[in-house]
Amino acid sequence: MYDYLRAPQAIYEKSFATIRQEVDFSGMSDPMRSIATRIIHACGMPEILNELSFDDKVAEAAVAALRGGAPILSDCEMVTHGIIKRFLPKNNSVICTLNQPDVPTRAAEMHTTRSAAAIELWREHLEGSVAVFGNAPTALFHLLEIMEKGAPKPAAILGFPVGFVGAAESKTALAESTLNIPFVTLLGRKGGSAMAAAAVNAIARLAGEGT
Amino acid sequence: MYDYLRAPQAIYEKSFATIRQEVDFSGMSDPMRSIATRIIHACGMPEILNELSFDDKVAEAAVAALRGGAPILSDCEMVTHGIIKRFLPKNNSVICTLNQPDVPTRAAEMHTTRSAAAIELWREHLEGSVAVFGNAPTALFHLLEIMEKGAPKPAAILGFPVGFVGAAESKTALAESTLNIPFVTLLGRKGGSAMAAAAVNAIARLAGEGT
Repeated sequence: MYDYLRAPQAIYEKSFATIRQEVDFSGMSDPMRSIATRIIHACGMPEILNELSFDDKVAEAAVAALRGGAPILSDCEMVTHGIIKRFLPKNNSVICTLNQPDVPTRAAEMHTTRSAAAIELWREHLEGSVAVFGNAPTALFHLLEIMEKGAPKPAAILGFPVGFVGAAESKTALAESTLNIPFVTLLGRKGGSAMAAAAVNAIARLAGEGT
Repeated sequence: MYDYLRAPQAIYEKSFATIRQEVDFSGMSDPMRSIATRIIHACGMPEILNELSFDDKVAEAAVAALRGGAPILSDCEMVTHGIIKRFLPKNNSVICTLNQPDVPTRAAEMHTTRSAAAIELWREHLEGSVAVFGNAPTALFHLLEIMEKGAPKPAAILGFPVGFVGAAESKTALAESTLNIPFVTLLGRKGGSAMAAAAVNAIARLAGEGT
């Protein structure tokens, strides 16, 4: 037998105590601290706090959206399967259009990735939604582009594209966007579906509190 | 319009070229280099190579298992949804027992997590399988424990539990185990379902080559 902590509650408590010990959250609002804590918990990297960039209104905006029944739009399937459905305050829809049948044809016609083409199918759901990116820089870029051309706007954007080509650039574009949409993002190459799902789950928990 | 790379093939090529430029893979076999490249690609962190620990036989063992039709056993749903099914050479089963109905009761009886209790339901599938962990340290610990007591052995273990409590310890236990099962793992706190799925996808691609 190995000597390790087995009780789920004790594991959570020790995890969060470790994060509180190692991370200086000063200056962050309580809801934003909850979101940051869950993101750090998902990746095991307290050091990412330095690259976390966010609009002070993002927690409030995303919580209000979920409480109002807004859908969650995700760029990839892994995020949708990381979202803990029982936390969603209004049994909110979780929508990923990436694998819809016409996406490969659209991508070929648009000379872009399937991930970016799939964003076109978000249009009817976009207004007031919570948009989350855990994979594809091109998807986040594409959303920014269509919004600049007048597409409806989500209530909040959670931006965690990952990787070596375009990820850092797409997240900088989000953080520097003048579209005035509340966001949270992790600047640089790091990101991914686990962090993205953790951000959604943190917001869903906040939305469920006090309702 | 933002200026970014849109062509999927060009994005892949530039990503892998960046990884080759930044990472010194010398001393690694070609198959292991493929696996490491895909893991780094999934997290955007070339620096993790230093913590990657593996048995030289793991690529060969896991490839042979998949070619022989072995199932893939995963500790969490996110990994199963990150596995690209069309790459699997024998339409291999991808099994996650975490959400089977009796798991919460088993966990309570065993005084452990649901993730660890779910491993009990792997027993009939274990022999010669590819076991993959993208989340739960307790699940990896539990597999090591039942194997030490005589449970059937997988052909290979891909160990990427993540987090602050038990993750580093469970992966050190895997790397130091005397059970003699080929493995690849990322020592320390980092890990997660994206890296775990990337390892499976790399192995599946290798298994599909030359068949």
